[in-house]
Amino acid sequence: MPDTPAPTVAPAEGKLGILNVGLGAVTTTLIAGVELAKRGLGEPVGSLTQMGTIRLGKRTDDNVPLIKDFVPLAALEDIVFGAWDPYKADAYEAAVNAGVLDRHEHLAPIEDALRAIKPMPAAFDGAYVKRLEPENVMADTSKRGMLEQIRKDIRSFREEHGCARLVMIWSGSTEVYIEPGAAHASLDAFEAAIDAEDPSIAPSMLYAYAALLEGVPYANGAPNLAVDTSALRTLAEQQGVAISGKDYKTGQTLLKTVLAPMLKARMLGLNGWYSTNILGNRDGEVLDDPENFKTKETSKLGVLEDVLEPERFPQLYGDVYHKVRINYYPPRGDAKEGWDNIDLFGWLGYPMQMKVDFLCRDSILAAPLALDLCLFMDLAQRAGMGGIQEWLSFYYKSPQVAPGLYPEHDLFIQLTKLKNTLRWMMGEEVITHLGQDYAEDELAGIS
Amino acid sequence: MPDTPAPTVAPAEGKLGILNVGLGAVTTTLIAGVELAKRGLGEPVGSLTQMGTIRLGKRTDDNVPLIKDFVPLAALEDIVFGAWDPYKADAYEAAVNAGVLDRHEHLAPIEDALRAIKPMPAAFDGAYVKRLEPENVMADTSKRGMLEQIRKDIRSFREEHGCARLVMIWSGSTEVYIEPGAAHASLDAFEAAIDAEDPSIAPSMLYAYAALLEGVPYANGAPNLAVDTSALRTLAEQQGVAISGKDYKTGQTLLKTVLAPMLKARMLGLNGWYSTNILGNRDGEVLDDPENFKTKETSKLGVLEDVLEPERFPQLYGDVYHKVRINYYPPRGDAKEGWDNIDLFGWLGYPMQMKVDFLCRDSILAAPLALDLCLFMDLAQRAGMGGIQEWLSFYYKSPQVAPGLYPEHDLFIQLTKLKNTLRWMMGEEVITHLGQDYAEDELAGIS
Amino acid sequence: MPDTPAPTVAPAEGKLGILNVGLGAVTTTLIAGVELAKRGLGEPVGSLTQMGTIRLGKRTDDNVPLIKDFVPLAALEDIVFGAWDPYKADAYEAAVNAGVLDRHEHLAPIEDALRAIKPMPAAFDGAYVKRLEPENVMADTSKRGMLEQIRKDIRSFREEHGCARLVMIWSGSTEVYIEPGAAHASLDAFEAAIDAEDPSIAPSMLYAYAALLEGVPYANGAPNLAVDTSALRTLAEQQGVAISGKDYKTGQTLLKTVLAPMLKARMLGLNGWYSTNILGNRDGEVLDDPENFKTKETSKLGVLEDVLEPERFPQLYGDVYHKVRINYYPPRGDAKEGWDNIDLFGWLGYPMQMKVDFLCRDSILAAPLALDLCLFMDLAQRAGMGGIQEWLSFYYKSPQVAPGLYPEHDLFIQLTKLKNTLRWMMGEEVITHLGQDYAEDELAGIS
Amino acid sequence: MPDTPAPTVAPAEGKLGILNVGLGAVTTTLIAGVELAKRGLGEPVGSLTQMGTIRLGKRTDDNVPLIKDFVPLAALEDIVFGAWDPYKADAYEAAVNAGVLDRHEHLAPIEDALRAIKPMPAAFDGAYVKRLEPENVMADTSKRGMLEQIRKDIRSFREEHGCARLVMIWSGSTEVYIEPGAAHASLDAFEAAIDAEDPSIAPSMLYAYAALLEGVPYANGAPNLAVDTSALRTLAEQQGVAISGKDYKTGQTLLKTVLAPMLKARMLGLNGWYSTNILGNRDGEVLDDPENFKTKETSKLGVLEDVLEPERFPQLYGDVYHKVRINYYPPRGDAKEGWDNIDLFGWLGYPMQMKVDFLCRDSILAAPLALDLCLFMDLAQRAGMGGIQEWLSFYYKSPQVAPGLYPEHDLFIQLTKLKNTLRWMMGEEVITHLGQDYAEDELAGIS
Repeated sequence: MPDTPAPTVAPAEGKLGILNVGLGAVTTTLIAGVELAKRGLGEPVGSLTQMGTIRLGKRTDDNVPLIKDFVPLAALEDIVFGAWDPYKADAYEAAVNAGVLDRHEHLAPIEDALRAIKPMPAAFDGAYVKRLEPENVMADTSKRGMLEQIRKDIRSFREEHGCARLVMIWSGSTEVYIEPGAAHASLDAFEAAIDAEDPSIAPSMLYAYAALLEGVPYANGAPNLAVDTSALRTLAEQQGVAISGKDYKTGQTLLKTVLAPMLKARMLGLNGWYSTNILGNRDGEVLDDPENFKTKETSKLGVLEDVLEPERFPQLYGDVYHKVRINYYPPRGDAKEGWDNIDLFGWLGYPMQMKVDFLCRDSILAAPLALDLCLFMDLAQRAGMGGIQEWLSFYYKSPQVAPGLYPEHDLFIQLTKLKNTLRWMMGEEVITHLGQDYAEDELAGIS
Repeated sequence: MPDTPAPTVAPAEGKLGILNVGLGAVTTTLIAGVELAKRGLGEPVGSLTQMGTIRLGKRTDDNVPLIKDFVPLAALEDIVFGAWDPYKADAYEAAVNAGVLDRHEHLAPIEDALRAIKPMPAAFDGAYVKRLEPENVMADTSKRGMLEQIRKDIRSFREEHGCARLVMIWSGSTEVYIEPGAAHASLDAFEAAIDAEDPSIAPSMLYAYAALLEGVPYANGAPNLAVDTSALRTLAEQQGVAISGKDYKTGQTLLKTVLAPMLKARMLGLNGWYSTNILGNRDGEVLDDPENFKTKETSKLGVLEDVLEPERFPQLYGDVYHKVRINYYPPRGDAKEGWDNIDLFGWLGYPMQMKVDFLCRDSILAAPLALDLCLFMDLAQRAGMGGIQEWLSFYYKSPQVAPGLYPEHDLFIQLTKLKNTLRWMMGEEVITHLGQDYAEDELAGIS
Repeated sequence: MPDTPAPTVAPAEGKLGILNVGLGAVTTTLIAGVELAKRGLGEPVGSLTQMGTIRLGKRTDDNVPLIKDFVPLAALEDIVFGAWDPYKADAYEAAVNAGVLDRHEHLAPIEDALRAIKPMPAAFDGAYVKRLEPENVMADTSKRGMLEQIRKDIRSFREEHGCARLVMIWSGSTEVYIEPGAAHASLDAFEAAIDAEDPSIAPSMLYAYAALLEGVPYANGAPNLAVDTSALRTLAEQQGVAISGKDYKTGQTLLKTVLAPMLKARMLGLNGWYSTNILGNRDGEVLDDPENFKTKETSKLGVLEDVLEPERFPQLYGDVYHKVRINYYPPRGDAKEGWDNIDLFGWLGYPMQMKVDFLCRDSILAAPLALDLCLFMDLAQRAGMGGIQEWLSFYYKSPQVAPGLYPEHDLFIQLTKLKNTLRWMMGEEVITHLGQDYAEDELAGIS
Repeated sequence: MPDTPAPTVAPAEGKLGILNVGLGAVTTTLIAGVELAKRGLGEPVGSLTQMGTIRLGKRTDDNVPLIKDFVPLAALEDIVFGAWDPYKADAYEAAVNAGVLDRHEHLAPIEDALRAIKPMPAAFDGAYVKRLEPENVMADTSKRGMLEQIRKDIRSFREEHGCARLVMIWSGSTEVYIEPGAAHASLDAFEAAIDAEDPSIAPSMLYAYAALLEGVPYANGAPNLAVDTSALRTLAEQQGVAISGKDYKTGQTLLKTVLAPMLKARMLGLNGWYSTNILGNRDGEVLDDPENFKTKETSKLGVLEDVLEPERFPQLYGDVYHKVRINYYPPRGDAKEGWDNIDLFGWLGYPMQMKVDFLCRDSILAAPLALDLCLFMDLAQRAGMGGIQEWLSFYYKSPQVAPGLYPEHDLFIQLTKLKNTLRWMMGEEVITHLGQDYAEDELAGIS
């Protein structure tokens, strides 16, 4: 990056259409938050693009603008939302059903704006999401038919709303677990599999494929394979379309990616890590199916191994028992709770324990990530940066990387990378000095 | 630092004497662990000097030696321990009383080595530590008398054990709270105050002063002022003696310095942070006195403000209610427990909560820090680096910095700084590249 | 009791006036809940008088009416509320300030009814409640003056609202700690002390005294001495006025009175019990003052000793370290949180731990207790039962008992006693059989 | 019971042989504890028979002897232990492997006594316990062959050790879930099924059947059907042999049976209860198999419904989501941890939460229950009380009751029943008065 010349970033002119796959808790919370923020009725807390700052030059320069004043991002006022969903409820009804936001305080003032957003019929395959009973699906349910319909929907949306640019983001359900196979190895195989109604072509892949074919950046908020296959990755690079994934890093994994680095920084050993979650929203219902849970579990389990490097520190991390559980628990609704038990050990092997109970809110944590991803994906596209956006790993549980590389999970390293990429894009000096006298606080990129 | 030529580091030849102020839980756990590790009977888990690695060159070079193979540290075999303590118990008895280590498994095999360490009578002042009833104090209890006795003890120890070098480390009690005053403003005032039996001259200051006068580096494991005054800081610089402090960062504050940066990285807001601790060792007993607690409280409270920068992010951190409590609770012994409740908020201000219950062990966490500090302070001294060792902030709750600077609390930035200082000392290139293709994982310095 | 003939209970005809000392969080939650329940807009969950049942006869009789269908209680429709408070806010404003109930859902529908309740100026003494700045106090602040004004207020209220009967209940602040002294030993001394402006005459005593003089039952929801002195207890008996106290048993102590009996039932030992609380309402603010906290602490500490009988089980309970802390923590508002750590031990002395985190709501738990107490106190008065109502111990942290007796803390025994008293009042057979074949479930009185 | 004449209890003369099915963590902890207690080297904490008291007569009589001084129980000195186990390790090795007791402090002093106990080969069926690989099983593995071998073992043990009486107790693994079927409906069917190698005849049934045929009381510490079938229950009654079960009530369920009654006593509503457990002993390993877990789950789930009576209180308990999870987690060994999240609601439906983290020790909690059960079962047998011992429900998660009755789960009612049965046995007056003036504390039977 430092040796590559900075790109030319096209200005953020015109409307940006955000096409959401799924109009559930996350999407309606995102939309409502943006609408409230536009009206000055709510703060987009948790969003780096809206509230974060970035340091430029030396620390003594005291030049720390807001990120949104530094890079040319789409303004909230220029955003238009669309969505596909297997249920018919409009964004207002869906938001009420989700039960995330207070109806009186946060939905009533923007009821009209929300009601105007009606979901397009979804490309849906019951084999991939078993616990839902859809009521709003495409007429032609062949894979080819769904692909074409998505493309048609994209073009219609662009035209109807006069969008200068689009991004697509998946905030839908977690699909059942599959591994990349022959059908995903090349574009030819992929095309043939679509026509053959090959069961290994998931709806998420059709959405991603349609996006790429229409030149629309695709961000993947779930652990589904989607765009993370050889076929689509190659296409994205060839077409110069930005892609990124997988799986919003919100609650428990967010914590893991700071606590595990802490243990390692201090050379404290680890015997086991048990994580359980209870949540009662639609996501929890879908994940109650073991096949869907496996997709999520795989996404969650990789973190510790990558951070702790057991091969380098076998006495400390060579025998870690890591278990992750998710339980559908309706009383909790969207107010997810993660409970972690960490069995660590110190000096002479003495055992200690840490328990973390995180009473969080799934969609409240995810919505700002979705917003940031849409704005940064659009920025990358305007900067001509096609293919995998590794610099957005900060947002993902299971960052998509080029084949042969391993993902970076440490939250603070991820943030540094993100900010340095922004600096590089704008032709600013990347933070390079680690002098005793200045700049150290920049390393974790948090100023 | 990068612009300064690397120092010449004298080799670690001969014996290193470690003079401990206090022969309580931390010191006996330190000594026992070193003795066990020397015999292959225990692992010095938690110690960066013994188990940590450091990456050199580019990531693709795959050159990651152990720190102790990279920098010339004193070997464990060359360490000799001495201690002052207001109780007469030798290191074996004191370890048994402390109840930290298993008597059968970890004390029996080294009983002889421990019994050989008898505490020298302590410089003690009941006005500074009220809850203890000392039985082993110096004969002359005037401040001048105590100062001279400490110096005499240092010289005797050096000679008796044939030490090539010494370091002094405070693992004793927390003294009552005082602020720097006229008596600490200059060396002349300090000298005069000693003669005048000025109550603002604490025992910790006499130990620190004696160390400096004898050319012995001084590390401060408690929040006491000790060497953190204008008078002694100036002397340390003039004499070229290494100093560092204050207060081992072990349990709750360690967590705070990774969780607060996490909140900030994600732009999540904070309403309140309530921290309570229960512990039953001598430290807990001393801290049950409000005046002594105030010293510790001050040390613990600064962290959040420095990390969160409320002036820069008033909507997120402008109104944080931060409370820290320590409760003496004998049933728990040294097995300290910290419980934190964190009231955070996200998107549109929705509240969430995090609870962290850390069932830790005070001395198990502190002992490796004490070992690392002694070895690194000795290294710094051999490298000719006098004055404050800011690069050791990694180990301290309340890092001592030069006047006018603010301390760095973020654990990962602290670690980067530490490792870069080691690289610089050895003439290696400081990690400077933040390229998209490599080296990012180095940023937090954890490989 | 079983040997005493059942009393004649006068019917609950006419209006019942409930005079609340304090119009804060508890009182407004009580009033709002009753108003909502009357309109079918809310359920009085937590109230035994409204939702509880009582078994009559043998278990095989299957005769289990609602308590309110069994004993002649005042109907919610017949209740009229009044209150004294040192702030001027009416019940609607006070409820909004308290932040306990949802403004849209639970306050808006009854705004008129709440606004109609304006607080009478309070009998207030800044020496007893230091952290408040009152704005609505009686004109004559002499003790005699305040006493007379309270009596006048009682009479005016009765007349104005046409009440057939009244009860007074203290839901105000906790006063500073005092012990019964000479001024409280007899009515003569008490009278003299009032005239002498003796500082040991607290406002709570004046309210209680006024109530007794007016023949109004007095229930004490705080740990203040109030009616728990020789002088007033004697008066209550002589006048035949019902009294009860002290201190609503809501969160942490409620738990303690079931967990401690569990340990004892199982003969599990106890080393220590550490309880901490964080809350941010007015109650928390007042208790932040050490003198006020002492009153509450005393009320909370007695429980364990009374339940565990250390003198009978010295190996198990002879050395229990019990600590209770309350911290004012504004971010939490009325949503109090209690965290308990319990250090128990089992077979051969092996230690175990239990942690209980109770995320409760102070006033939500207290309001149904206040309602039940008012209705049961009125019932007792109509049954001619003057003096201490020990059978209402179920509701109190520190049950008031006759001199020489010790309080019963076990929640289940308390409930049995309560229900048997109701049976006795109504001439029903007290549950007496403990046969193998039936009736056991009645023992804890919960059916 | 009160109307039945008290039985004649034969004295506890001669040796009592305790035959343990399973020589794992619970049994070795039981044996070691008894051996230590006999030598005055340990306290049998948690055992009602050894440490509990019982009140006789009126409270004012102050007559509260130890239970073991009141009823004629076998003395610890008279106990002899035997065991079957599918592993060959003797009781010392098995105790070391279990890792429950400290080897130096609690196993070394009684090593000889433990080594003398060698397990008899087990009646084992891999279809019922899948995760174990047995090495010490009976030669003849036909069901008939195993039955006869168990009977032979019983007789040999009695003779070899000169036992006057025997009891058998199951502390072995949880078998896979089965429901009572045709093979368990009558003794004839049961006999035929044994000969037919019917897969629905579990090893636990063979042990129980053998015990009954030999006139040996059988206590069931696991949730296995075992003796809880029509065939064996009838036989027990006919033969006059005492039986009881099922499943030791130790950690999480123990808590549930006091917390659920607390909610009900206070008429607090319940939305959900989520319970998770982590443990790493052999029990945990077996329960990691879904079929075995189902047996345990069924045992654990019944509690709430029976206590809360949803049909009587539909607004409070009509829609409770109850989930129980057990996770095999080796780092924890026998030190089981249960974490409960309880979603309750109060006044007007406002939600509250309670979290209970119980860091317990499985075998430390179970061993005293096993001891008490053996001693009380022997007592019942001597008192001529054949069939189900419902009065021992206090010890069981899923109390075995006569057909058509429902089990009592409330811990305090269970204890009252237990103590009253003891009183009745000894011809003492059952506690029957619930007077206002005395005896209330007896109701929960805890004095």
